[in-house]
Amino acid sequence: MAVRKRVKEILTGVFESYGFEPLETPALEYQSVLLGKYGQEADKLVYTFDDKGGRKVGLRYDLTVPLARVAAIHQSDLPVPFKRYQIQRVWRADKPQKGRYREIEMCDVDILNSASPMADAEILAVIVDALKRLGMKQFTIRLNSRQVLFSLIEAAGISENLKFSIIQTIDKLDKKTRDEVSAELERKGLNSEQISDLFSTLAATRPAGYLEQVLEKAKSMGVADSYLKFDSTLARGLDYYTGPIFETVVEEPKIGSITGGGRYDQLIKQLGGPDWPAVGTTLGLDRICDVIIENKLWPDLSPTSTKVFVTLFDESLVESSLSLAKELREGGIITEVYLDPRAKLDKQLKYADRKGIPFVVILGPEEVKKNVVTVKNMTTGEQKTVPLAELPKILQD
Amino acid sequence: MAVRKRVKEILTGVFESYGFEPLETPALEYQSVLLGKYGQEADKLVYTFDDKGGRKVGLRYDLTVPLARVAAIHQSDLPVPFKRYQIQRVWRADKPQKGRYREIEMCDVDILNSASPMADAEILAVIVDALKRLGMKQFTIRLNSRQVLFSLIEAAGISENLKFSIIQTIDKLDKKTRDEVSAELERKGLNSEQISDLFSTLAATRPAGYLEQVLEKAKSMGVADSYLKFDSTLARGLDYYTGPIFETVVEEPKIGSITGGGRYDQLIKQLGGPDWPAVGTTLGLDRICDVIIENKLWPDLSPTSTKVFVTLFDESLVESSLSLAKELREGGIITEVYLDPRAKLDKQLKYADRKGIPFVVILGPEEVKKNVVTVKNMTTGEQKTVPLAELPKILQD
Repeated sequence: MAVRKRVKEILTGVFESYGFEPLETPALEYQSVLLGKYGQEADKLVYTFDDKGGRKVGLRYDLTVPLARVAAIHQSDLPVPFKRYQIQRVWRADKPQKGRYREIEMCDVDILNSASPMADAEILAVIVDALKRLGMKQFTIRLNSRQVLFSLIEAAGISENLKFSIIQTIDKLDKKTRDEVSAELERKGLNSEQISDLFSTLAATRPAGYLEQVLEKAKSMGVADSYLKFDSTLARGLDYYTGPIFETVVEEPKIGSITGGGRYDQLIKQLGGPDWPAVGTTLGLDRICDVIIENKLWPDLSPTSTKVFVTLFDESLVESSLSLAKELREGGIITEVYLDPRAKLDKQLKYADRKGIPFVVILGPEEVKKNVVTVKNMTTGEQKTVPLAELPKILQD
Repeated sequence: MAVRKRVKEILTGVFESYGFEPLETPALEYQSVLLGKYGQEADKLVYTFDDKGGRKVGLRYDLTVPLARVAAIHQSDLPVPFKRYQIQRVWRADKPQKGRYREIEMCDVDILNSASPMADAEILAVIVDALKRLGMKQFTIRLNSRQVLFSLIEAAGISENLKFSIIQTIDKLDKKTRDEVSAELERKGLNSEQISDLFSTLAATRPAGYLEQVLEKAKSMGVADSYLKFDSTLARGLDYYTGPIFETVVEEPKIGSITGGGRYDQLIKQLGGPDWPAVGTTLGLDRICDVIIENKLWPDLSPTSTKVFVTLFDESLVESSLSLAKELREGGIITEVYLDPRAKLDKQLKYADRKGIPFVVILGPEEVKKNVVTVKNMTTGEQKTVPLAELPKILQD
């Protein structure tokens, strides 16, 4: 929870710093809204049921369909371009395994009703800004354009109905060898000349047209070149992208992409919304947390936000401990006080230790008499007696 | 969203300042966990269904049952007392009406495995602290003790099996006249002597025993007497309270209680958890937002967190606008820049106005040449030209 909470705070801050507004939608949507949007496979993973009134409903599967519904209903009330972020859970009736859960928290940021390359560039700027602020130093945004892929498949004389299937095979070039991919293309019906043409065109392809404008604008927004890598083999699984596509990968741990997105100019309309060109990305909260935890990016993050624990000596000194705790709290120091004066000091210290609270303040009759307190650093075990009046200052330091 | 978000931030801050830790649980629970806990009426309002694997599941109805389940599963891993807060949604298949929704966001704060009156007192301190920090000046926590109610019903010679029914009638004394309540008690089988006994005992009742200790400890924690009002007629609807009960009411608007809670020493065990005495409260997010909005407590809260909007003059000046926006953003000023240089200034200003952004910065060729910008205050309409270098300082002020 400590890592998740901090990640969400940082992402929210970055999204808002670019003028994205928060949106939340209900967990339940009508099945007519949810189903038939992503193909049969995904439909099987939607939690569907009849509610008490016999209405056919389901739990949302992603945050894009609800966004399209909101756009459809409120299109005349929304300022356009409509820039929204949404951090909410989605549900998938999937087989749970490492990195795949039935309840997932998604962080989506999208710009609706803008066909400007500045919109795509801003999404890239948000991703780079967010990952940098999370403390990630090494990450790469792989970029490509669906239009580029389509035209080079056409140029190689490959038939239109094989388009998406070929793209899915090309997408494997980052995981498989060139020979393995060649074999798969052959199985899909390409001859050796087409395959060799395809590879040489892929290698020679450079960003062009719209994608080039996006990259130029991203540069003007301060996105360093070092984070961006054009990759003509990037395909992304979903069918609905119509322009630039991008995903973020890290070297370690090996967990696939931590962000994924692109331009989808037809989708909002297809999903029942208005005819709004759009671009956006998902940031995968669970995988981002994995990267932060496994790479130990936040070594100083405490499991608790509590900074100080105040002990109770006995019933007669409860009031002294309570007023000290209140004073510290009013000074902005998160302070927990034990709640039972009958508990032995040892038990109280164990509790503070178990919660990972970094400092313990001990207040006994001797301390009260002399107007001092004993402060124990729970990490080092070091203990010292300081004047009561100086305590807030010492703890703040 | 602006009000909701701010309320949640403030509540989270207050909960954590007392050492409560965040907990989140999944939306779906097994029906065996959810049903049979609150009586038949509530059971009917649980969204239940069979999942794809034929498992009987449902959406959580409150945050207490999931807490009991967590306590049951993790009892040996949790530091005790276990102090947790939880801000999540619950679902009720209810008839929607004003103040009653099918999806509700709850803010719960509970202390498990503590029988100390300091725990009850801390819950009261959290409520007072939270409502004060939300900017509420007039609110009253009505307090009573279930034990006191039980014993005075017994003293009036009323039969045990009428106990909860009589409590529910007494609870209406804040909404109905004494005569109306008397009539209802008569209908429930009490004779006039019993009724008159009951009223005089209620009037003479003062806090005693455990509740008195709670009030004393609350005072030591700095809770002002003026917020607390002992009310021997307070009953609270739910059956599971075993000790002190409390709810918070405001004069305006008339929306019932905005918090509700008490001690429930048997519930965690009954819900399948360990035998842990507990105390806690719910803060109703929706009603709290209603109070803030209807009483205009936050007149300065902007509908957007964006402070500045930077316009685009044309394609040639995009870079100037983008680098200015970046600079402001890096200075901690939330800055949105328009995303299409082809849009007329008028359209851009309308967009900023619609979003409620307080300041607009206009950057044209004249401004760029002279190293100045024009700042427009969108509230007053006032417009002035200032040196570019002074802009961050001026906006921060």
